[in-house]
Amino acid sequence: MNTAHATAEAEIGAQVASWLQAVLAMDSEGIVLHYAPDILTFDAVAQLPFRGVEAYRKHWQACLAMCRPGTMIFEMHALHVTAGDDVAFATALTRCGGRGENGEAKAGWMRMTAGYRKTNGTWMVVHEHFSAPCDRATLKVLDVKP
Amino acid sequence: MNTAHATAEAEIGAQVASWLQAVLAMDSEGIVLHYAPDILTFDAVAQLPFRGVEAYRKHWQACLAMCRPGTMIFEMHALHVTAGDDVAFATALTRCGGRGENGEAKAGWMRMTAGYRKTNGTWMVVHEHFSAPCDRATLKVLDVKP
Repeated sequence: MNTAHATAEAEIGAQVASWLQAVLAMDSEGIVLHYAPDILTFDAVAQLPFRGVEAYRKHWQACLAMCRPGTMIFEMHALHVTAGDDVAFATALTRCGGRGENGEAKAGWMRMTAGYRKTNGTWMVVHEHFSAPCDRATLKVLDVKP
Repeated sequence: MNTAHATAEAEIGAQVASWLQAVLAMDSEGIVLHYAPDILTFDAVAQLPFRGVEAYRKHWQACLAMCRPGTMIFEMHALHVTAGDDVAFATALTRCGGRGENGEAKAGWMRMTAGYRKTNGTWMVVHEHFSAPCDRATLKVLDVKP
């Protein structure tokens, strides 16, 4: 890997950490600050695609509302960044869910792919894909661990 | 976009077309020719991640076996490529399934994200993520159309 690509990987790592901090703070405005206006997202629930940051902001707000009152569970594991000069993507396994008022955790494992483009010197998320694998026969989400 | 990036986007488009041809031919060897040895994949069914081309080859073979005897349904829509000098990713909506001996189609809509890296002048798929969104309450795959 050349130096420019190593720098880009470190920059994406910092972007992911900043986004994750906003997720854990359940701060929808902080989350969407990382997204490009024309972001295309594939979330684990509800719709096939979400097009544009406004649609995705509303979806995040609905998801976060389901966690309140309580705490967000969002762990990121096995983060791997592939970065070029101005295009990059990251993959990770995530454990997502919430802890209700009674303290009981309800969380499952998912997969994350995020796509980035550098515009005017700033890396922005232009694509996000979250999903859980399902059972082929029942079409129900699998309760799997890494 | 600069000329180099336009060329890279066209190269990825050709890679996707070649991969799709192998999928439609139900040719597992032709499919895996597009994959890097250390590919990391998140498929819609069965497992959280698949690590390495050999694990994914076996998974493809199992998937293709389920379509036989019959024909593969694999349509790709809204393909969008984001390409840099040697890193790129592509997104698409896909309609996947099979048509059995009785001619009945059994197919559903999914989302695809593929990640590419150019090594020694050749673009290879280093990451693939297929999924279907599910219903938050029932955790069953949604039968949604774009």
